[in-house]
Amino acid sequence: MAEPRGSSIDGKLAEEFAAPSHVDEVKEKMSAFARRHADAGRRVVLITSGGTKVPLESRTVRFLDNFSSGRRGASSAEYFIDSGYAVIFLHRHRSLYPYTRMFLPVNLLEALQFRGGEGASGNTGEVVVNQQLLPNVGKVLKRYNEVKEGGLLLPIEFNTLSEYLHLLKAAAQELSSIGSLAMFYLAAAVSDFYIPASEMPEHKIQSSNGPLQLSMKMVPKILSPLVKDWAPKAFVISFKLETDASILLDKARRALDAYRHQAVVANILDSRRGHVVVVTPDTQTELTLNEEDAKNEVEIEEKIVSNLIFAHTKFINQPIG
Amino acid sequence: MAEPRGSSIDGKLAEEFAAPSHVDEVKEKMSAFARRHADAGRRVVLITSGGTKVPLESRTVRFLDNFSSGRRGASSAEYFIDSGYAVIFLHRHRSLYPYTRMFLPVNLLEALQFRGGEGASGNTGEVVVNQQLLPNVGKVLKRYNEVKEGGLLLPIEFNTLSEYLHLLKAAAQELSSIGSLAMFYLAAAVSDFYIPASEMPEHKIQSSNGPLQLSMKMVPKILSPLVKDWAPKAFVISFKLETDASILLDKARRALDAYRHQAVVANILDSRRGHVVVVTPDTQTELTLNEEDAKNEVEIEEKIVSNLIFAHTKFINQPIG
Repeated sequence: MAEPRGSSIDGKLAEEFAAPSHVDEVKEKMSAFARRHADAGRRVVLITSGGTKVPLESRTVRFLDNFSSGRRGASSAEYFIDSGYAVIFLHRHRSLYPYTRMFLPVNLLEALQFRGGEGASGNTGEVVVNQQLLPNVGKVLKRYNEVKEGGLLLPIEFNTLSEYLHLLKAAAQELSSIGSLAMFYLAAAVSDFYIPASEMPEHKIQSSNGPLQLSMKMVPKILSPLVKDWAPKAFVISFKLETDASILLDKARRALDAYRHQAVVANILDSRRGHVVVVTPDTQTELTLNEEDAKNEVEIEEKIVSNLIFAHTKFINQPIG
Repeated sequence: MAEPRGSSIDGKLAEEFAAPSHVDEVKEKMSAFARRHADAGRRVVLITSGGTKVPLESRTVRFLDNFSSGRRGASSAEYFIDSGYAVIFLHRHRSLYPYTRMFLPVNLLEALQFRGGEGASGNTGEVVVNQQLLPNVGKVLKRYNEVKEGGLLLPIEFNTLSEYLHLLKAAAQELSSIGSLAMFYLAAAVSDFYIPASEMPEHKIQSSNGPLQLSMKMVPKILSPLVKDWAPKAFVISFKLETDASILLDKARRALDAYRHQAVVANILDSRRGHVVVVTPDTQTELTLNEEDAKNEVEIEEKIVSNLIFAHTKFINQPIG
């Protein structure tokens, strides 16, 4: 499993994946954010979250996508902030977002009402949240405002695989300046396959032409230059999602061997909300939600984040060598 | 362009597309809804909305999707209800929804505040909507509650192409009982291609196996049995979205020839929010938003719905022949 060198991936990125026009602007934001927090003694985690869109046409009607609501990334962001980290949240447009994710299960118009009642004489025209339906709204709103005030969350959006790859590279380069204070928490569900811009039809593929034969190339393994070249001192976590439990841990180990990063969070599609394994070169730690946790609405991400922050602290304090 | 007979499509549907387990329950709901409203002299429109998910694996990590926010379907539903129709809203899970679509452009936590101010002595713990940021919330909430009270909107969700096809068939069969009072407004962005369940791998496709060759079959043209067999008296509108303007109207005409339904709403990806052409066997009507409309926040869907309701009235009143 020899990996191509970082430099060749750089070339491929430039040639076959269109860079978003605002990448320099985003770079500046990320750089200032990292510098400001590191100067204040705060660690910075870059979280990637959500699935990537892989267009089949350049004027895109059809695309390939990866299953991901963005739930894991959004909830993890909250736990990192609670533990004193500043968070760059690189997420798919309209995937779940920290704090606002609380609104997902409800139809919001069901949870709003006129103060004093509709049409009643006490109706002031004010619209209030029904806290029977959204019991946590006050707590979450307060926390959201604190985080905003503290400037602890920098949201960056991507939509396509190309945008994701270029923005992640930009983030890695900017975060390299804070060395081991930076953590990469790569929870996004990134496509392994794509169609190069040069081979993509411009217009919508016509069904009158018959069945569709798609030939998709392999996406360059960006973890390789990220670890070797772009942010070599950072603490890097990747995620491995499989449906077949029998190959999961072997695949996690192979990824660690190939990319030489610090940990893989391994999980199975059906059980991902209640069970993961954190795999490092020397350890293998199972994290599980038990009945007690479920009753208390504990989320598995709280345990994942806590485990990784402990490891990050050890990593920062290790003798250089 | 000979179309396969409806009956052969029925067979294909049963064999190659898994029916959702709740289809009978949904059928009953739709049937009761249509009957109740038709008895009250109300017309019923079935709106389909959003894109379809086409799994590449049976334990799905990857899928093909079609670009669609569901905006057109959701806004059209509101205009149909305003014009006295009852609406069955067959939509992709988490695509835009009538009325609640107003929240899309804002981060909701930005639009909420504590009554009396955070931490102030007047803070009652009540959370109110900031109507400077959401000026229409009162009006929309009132309308939402009226529509709910009147039972004018029946939401049905789909996720995959299979669910969409089976639920649309069920809707057509149930709505056939109200004859020409039923309209089908097929605005969903439906995939033309799929992988049959029998040819689908169970587990996540492994990138270590190299580049991906996908061979996708053509989705049966469900409009054919819908018009001929399932709801032969209904007023049926399909949508045609292209990126290449030079083929659009020809494709719309060919669809009318092939399926013998009443109208095609033809539109181009880039201009779809400001311009469409309603094509019928005898007419071709351009609908456009002008500057005045844009200033008044008029939506193109208001014009589309108004045009089609006029045609539906003529269709209902035509001499039977």
